[in-house]
Amino acid sequence: MASEKPQDLMVTCTAPVNIAVIKYWGKRDEALILPINSSLSVTLHQDQLKTTTTVAISKDFTEDRIWLNGREEDVGQPRLQACLREIRRLARKRRSTEDGDTLPLSLSYKVHVASVNNFPTAAGLASSAAGYACLAYTLAQVYGVEGDLSEVARRGSGSACRSLYGGFVEWQMGEQADGKDSIARQIAPEWHWPQLRILILVVSADKKQTGSTVGMQTSVETSTLLKFRAESVVPERMKEMTRCIQEQDFQGFAQLTMKDSNQFHATCLDTFPPISYLNDTSRRIIQLVHRFNTHQGQTKVAYTFDAGPNAVIFTLEDTVAEFVAAVRHSFPPAANGDKFLKGLQVAPVLLSDELKAALAVEPSPGGVQYIIATQVGPGPQVLDDTHDHLLGQDGLPQRDL
Amino acid sequence: MASEKPQDLMVTCTAPVNIAVIKYWGKRDEALILPINSSLSVTLHQDQLKTTTTVAISKDFTEDRIWLNGREEDVGQPRLQACLREIRRLARKRRSTEDGDTLPLSLSYKVHVASVNNFPTAAGLASSAAGYACLAYTLAQVYGVEGDLSEVARRGSGSACRSLYGGFVEWQMGEQADGKDSIARQIAPEWHWPQLRILILVVSADKKQTGSTVGMQTSVETSTLLKFRAESVVPERMKEMTRCIQEQDFQGFAQLTMKDSNQFHATCLDTFPPISYLNDTSRRIIQLVHRFNTHQGQTKVAYTFDAGPNAVIFTLEDTVAEFVAAVRHSFPPAANGDKFLKGLQVAPVLLSDELKAALAVEPSPGGVQYIIATQVGPGPQVLDDTHDHLLGQDGLPQRDL
Repeated sequence: MASEKPQDLMVTCTAPVNIAVIKYWGKRDEALILPINSSLSVTLHQDQLKTTTTVAISKDFTEDRIWLNGREEDVGQPRLQACLREIRRLARKRRSTEDGDTLPLSLSYKVHVASVNNFPTAAGLASSAAGYACLAYTLAQVYGVEGDLSEVARRGSGSACRSLYGGFVEWQMGEQADGKDSIARQIAPEWHWPQLRILILVVSADKKQTGSTVGMQTSVETSTLLKFRAESVVPERMKEMTRCIQEQDFQGFAQLTMKDSNQFHATCLDTFPPISYLNDTSRRIIQLVHRFNTHQGQTKVAYTFDAGPNAVIFTLEDTVAEFVAAVRHSFPPAANGDKFLKGLQVAPVLLSDELKAALAVEPSPGGVQYIIATQVGPGPQVLDDTHDHLLGQDGLPQRDL
Repeated sequence: MASEKPQDLMVTCTAPVNIAVIKYWGKRDEALILPINSSLSVTLHQDQLKTTTTVAISKDFTEDRIWLNGREEDVGQPRLQACLREIRRLARKRRSTEDGDTLPLSLSYKVHVASVNNFPTAAGLASSAAGYACLAYTLAQVYGVEGDLSEVARRGSGSACRSLYGGFVEWQMGEQADGKDSIARQIAPEWHWPQLRILILVVSADKKQTGSTVGMQTSVETSTLLKFRAESVVPERMKEMTRCIQEQDFQGFAQLTMKDSNQFHATCLDTFPPISYLNDTSRRIIQLVHRFNTHQGQTKVAYTFDAGPNAVIFTLEDTVAEFVAAVRHSFPPAANGDKFLKGLQVAPVLLSDELKAALAVEPSPGGVQYIIATQVGPGPQVLDDTHDHLLGQDGLPQRDL
């Protein structure tokens, strides 16, 4: 943290992307963003994927302002306002329960927010989750709010509350009408399962997808299968997934991850009009994974898909290289073959003829644009170096953004 | 009918294809082919799509033989054997309840069967339904079996029992363990809804699909959503669909048809490993239909998909021409534009600029190979002209097949 004037403050933090292995789809309360079922996610490492957010607060600011990836956005949008309102409420509550003002700054001061992702938004990764988690976490530093920030992050984007923690995280749906018990909780830390690896297969999409907010609302209104899933399938799966993670049971983890992804997309298709996030390339990846596993004689790789065609692959350290080679074989890089793999280093290996035959794919050149190799990572971090601030002393974005 | 010798007999019949609007997917008894839910279908007109089958029976035949589309096939395959066994059982039962032999021919005589479709099997239409319905119906003529043939046809292919009737047909799942009450029944005759039109959009498929027998078995074993659908969703939908048909409520019929197709494909996706019958072209057709309807301000067109990427479209006479033009606009024929439309004549019309804009599609040339335009039609027919026989007097396929 660094404050330029006694009454001013500027804080910069980072927050991770998370990938759900038990999916969240559908709200029981649109305003409070309360889900119809619990969900469970893996936090990805910020070395590869993160949001960085700077919040500055000053009596000199005349209005709240926000810049996303260097571009000023409408600060009046309801979800952003809900986050700001919520964090200020918590700050006020905190002050009233301690003696007097422990912070010099006034809650009436305006804030400036700047936020950047180190990955393309177009990659279809859950940037809003990392973004709102980072916002909530940074605002909490600024206002000196401690404790669980689920409610603040959740008001921005439901799944953002899961990005408040590293490792393996559940978002308990809660039962209360006011949502006080709808919170995220870490079920295992980031170092719990060191062999786990994650590959993001960025797929070329040819059209704009249905946004997840509108999509899940339509699903709740029209899909009878979604209601059944939320009530009768997910509770058992949450328990089973937690057990798999705690026991590092990869086969169980992998199979349930695939099944839950498929069921989520099934409920999208049962929506009216139907929603299709998977395209032919997604389906080829699904087939590739199943054939790869069949050839191995066990489940060594799992896929999961969110509200878009990109695949997120889970596997263990000892299988990464061979699976990446299988992806390269099935989706020969169109160009820039050297930039096909980003993130963690993966040694190149040759596929055996047996595996090539087992995959039995007709290569789809360019179907996968590139792969990001990553692993499980920690939760949000405060950056202590003032050089990391995205805002200058004038409270405006730094030139070199 | 025509018999060459007193004790010989040759009969030729035709039977229609049917398209389910409430889908059958999953058996509760694999051997008896008893479904986990009732289903409802529309019988397509045989002017466009039919199977023709000739059955000959003679004391001179030394073995049962069968030719499909001119090629001899293994007569020993279990489903074919089940049909033959079942019809002979009914024939035997009939004789024992009447006085003495009313038919001159012995049940121990061997049969020759020849069957042809007037549509390409590759079109992915339910040729097995028409085929087994035709076989059951023709065998019944030969053996003088009267009454419901659901059980015979069903043993060949579940949905074949629905091709035994024209118009609108339900297959009641039944409750008995022996399947005696699992029968097809006409709910409205073929002349009930004369304005109804059906378009089959034959889509280019790039890979072999999961067969429906194996597919539905895996679904029953692995999809929790399928079980819920069969028990808790379909019974209500059967009633609602019957009402829509009886009242000629096209909007209700169309919406429920689309919803049920989507839900069927959702349960396929919820299967493990997942089954995907829809491809990107199928999805573009779905989008086209919804956008077309939105532009019209009402549901004027419906889609349904079976175990493959081909779309079957329902619409009314007054909308056919405009929708065909919309398909042509979205999927410009790759070549042979004059053969793009088969079957019933459809007048060419120009699309309005407003509709073109509303469809907002990037044209996918060749995505739809061709369209077959048809309508609701009658059930199986006996062909009285001996020239229609597919077998010669020698009991072998005619040369010009």
